[in-house]
Amino acid sequence: MQNTKVAIVGLGTVGTGVARLLVEHGDRIARHAGRKLVLEHVAVNDLKKPRDIKLPSGMLSADIKRITSDPEISVVALLVGGLEPARSIMLALLDGGKDVVTANKALLAAHGPELFDRARELGRSIAFEASVAGGIPIIANISQCLSANEIQSIHAILNGTSNYILTQIEAHGTSYADAVRAAQGLGYAEADPTMDVDGSDAAQKLAILAHLAFGARVDWNDIPRQGIDTLDLADLRYAKELGYRIKLLAVAQLADGELELHVSPTLVKLGSPLAEVRGAYNAISVVGDAVGRVFFSGLGAGQMPTASAVVADIIDTVVGRSAITFRTLELWSKHIARVTARDYGRVAGRYYLRFSVADQPSVLAEIAGVLGKQNISIASVIQHEAEEGSQGVVPLMIMTHNTTEGAMGRAIEAIDRLAFMRGPSIRMRVRD
Amino acid sequence: MQNTKVAIVGLGTVGTGVARLLVEHGDRIARHAGRKLVLEHVAVNDLKKPRDIKLPSGMLSADIKRITSDPEISVVALLVGGLEPARSIMLALLDGGKDVVTANKALLAAHGPELFDRARELGRSIAFEASVAGGIPIIANISQCLSANEIQSIHAILNGTSNYILTQIEAHGTSYADAVRAAQGLGYAEADPTMDVDGSDAAQKLAILAHLAFGARVDWNDIPRQGIDTLDLADLRYAKELGYRIKLLAVAQLADGELELHVSPTLVKLGSPLAEVRGAYNAISVVGDAVGRVFFSGLGAGQMPTASAVVADIIDTVVGRSAITFRTLELWSKHIARVTARDYGRVAGRYYLRFSVADQPSVLAEIAGVLGKQNISIASVIQHEAEEGSQGVVPLMIMTHNTTEGAMGRAIEAIDRLAFMRGPSIRMRVRD
Repeated sequence: MQNTKVAIVGLGTVGTGVARLLVEHGDRIARHAGRKLVLEHVAVNDLKKPRDIKLPSGMLSADIKRITSDPEISVVALLVGGLEPARSIMLALLDGGKDVVTANKALLAAHGPELFDRARELGRSIAFEASVAGGIPIIANISQCLSANEIQSIHAILNGTSNYILTQIEAHGTSYADAVRAAQGLGYAEADPTMDVDGSDAAQKLAILAHLAFGARVDWNDIPRQGIDTLDLADLRYAKELGYRIKLLAVAQLADGELELHVSPTLVKLGSPLAEVRGAYNAISVVGDAVGRVFFSGLGAGQMPTASAVVADIIDTVVGRSAITFRTLELWSKHIARVTARDYGRVAGRYYLRFSVADQPSVLAEIAGVLGKQNISIASVIQHEAEEGSQGVVPLMIMTHNTTEGAMGRAIEAIDRLAFMRGPSIRMRVRD
Repeated sequence: MQNTKVAIVGLGTVGTGVARLLVEHGDRIARHAGRKLVLEHVAVNDLKKPRDIKLPSGMLSADIKRITSDPEISVVALLVGGLEPARSIMLALLDGGKDVVTANKALLAAHGPELFDRARELGRSIAFEASVAGGIPIIANISQCLSANEIQSIHAILNGTSNYILTQIEAHGTSYADAVRAAQGLGYAEADPTMDVDGSDAAQKLAILAHLAFGARVDWNDIPRQGIDTLDLADLRYAKELGYRIKLLAVAQLADGELELHVSPTLVKLGSPLAEVRGAYNAISVVGDAVGRVFFSGLGAGQMPTASAVVADIIDTVVGRSAITFRTLELWSKHIARVTARDYGRVAGRYYLRFSVADQPSVLAEIAGVLGKQNISIASVIQHEAEEGSQGVVPLMIMTHNTTEGAMGRAIEAIDRLAFMRGPSIRMRVRD
């Protein structure tokens, strides 16, 4: 049986998982690759850092040149986070004639076009299954398995940290701060979890999926997004009362030839597959015009689920499948985008609204009047009696019929100026 | 852009769907294939049959030689059902130098080793994504995307007809016969639905998955199976009362180095992903040692979902990915099986039991005594009062703790001989 030498750059959580699979489970990998994969070298930044894996002596170094200058190493897993030095290392690896596998979604979201163009010029490939949704093979499914379809929509839970936090709060009444700490303790959330909970991480992944599924070229920074960091426990409770669960949903959806894109906490109907996704799981519901709806769920992060995706990419690269996919799909190429993003103001949908209002007559009439002026019609209303200690402030919940983000924004702006308003208005999208 | 000529044999439901995608959606296919796919010829058995698609004149013939003798046609979709002449046509296509794509699971389950060996000898490939679970790309996911894993278990709903019938009965109280007729009316069930409802179809698909995921070589005929054709509406009702839903589950699961394999109506916990799969949908829950649990659902049959899988395979074949996968995986090769099936008598599990007993004292004690002799311990019991017109016969439901199929068989045999028994005993597996 032939040997193929591979290398890893970065031995953090995911890198350690990848090394473990390569070293401890060579048999199964050889079976799928048709040859033996030999982990030849691992380059790290800090040689002194304690590691969770014992590698043969001499395998580890702080010298990336040991990889770039070794012509026998053909595939390298780049498992360094952040933008720099990850970008420079990727370019050095490509220049050194290596095919690259990466899990770094931030790098692709920021520098995809540059990196993919360079790989094409040099006749190399970049595989990135692990960059979106961890263990769910959504990249391969969209770019290969569903290739006979025009994809019509993607509705996805792409941030496991946020989903874990929401599940904790809802199931155990945990406070937001405690849930974040629990997520950090389990290794789901970073020391600084901002990108997870403010929707940025999900927007980066959505930008990659939108590119693959719709041929859209969007800067993730331009994707309208809201995170779970501003959610109120009360809304989780009221949503349930209305028959919904709140999920941080990333949406990409064709509408009359334009692409609706957004990341936002969304009321999802209880009992629907997306509503039932718990803990650190991710899920993706894809609709294609031929296949109909296909639903995927699995662990969106964590050492071994992510390593599973990286090693599958290494195998695909070694056997030559990645090169074919990379060449035929022309990812992030200079080709004109097939679809452009719709202005968020024109994106349609239903809404959940919560107003904190003074407990006095005609409140509902005035709010309904403002909504009516924007042609927003009310589907249902819940008003609870004032609770003790509420100082005459009551919550008023409204579910609307279909409207647009723009009309809703104008309505909320007008409502917030009404004299009986006692706090900020809350609005969230609703998915039926 | 290059052209590649493809052909179809068989223009039934799926063949028509495939022709439609190739003819009407050439753009998207060219985008994924990196070249234009030209449908060059369609061979059918009966030229006079009315067709749902209008093809350019001259494209349709009853002469398979127009395909086998045309050296420019490199890929052929074989979409003829049954074993013969499908087997002979497949061999003729391979001999003619064609790569083949098929949706015919019965053919693969019966003649896989012969056909795959022949393809290997001739340097050709066979792709068969559409043969299992219709629109869900489970073949690619198991054989490529999860290749870093040792698969530990597969729990799947693989027969959409059975699932549709169960959903109809449960949701609308439809009779079994009416539900079968409705399934036929919608094109889910064949004129003779026997293979669907008796578990054979699911067993054929499970044999293919067991081969891919575990390296098992099992004859589908040897897989213990029970269908939904013997189910009683009462059991659907009692299952719900106990917090479960009955699904026709196909299971392949490693247990101490052996493979447990069976197809049977199974009580699945309400709220779990498999329990919530409705109508003609299929679903597959796969556990891998690295990735954890990954769940897939989608339409398991029907014209366009199946055509979606066939066309994805055609694209994979044209670009060269299929050849790589076919070569590296050595499917159905003469290699020794990695795992053998466990004798069904030793397969463990919990059970739901329903006995029709005379309404008299000591019945439960005697039944519990027999179960105890087989070391089967009782988890819960439901006994309802005799209904009017029941002539003193009452149903007694028992949920057991873990036991084996063998012990359960012996217990049921003994129980069926007890004097107070008034009808056949029902037993079903339980999945928590």
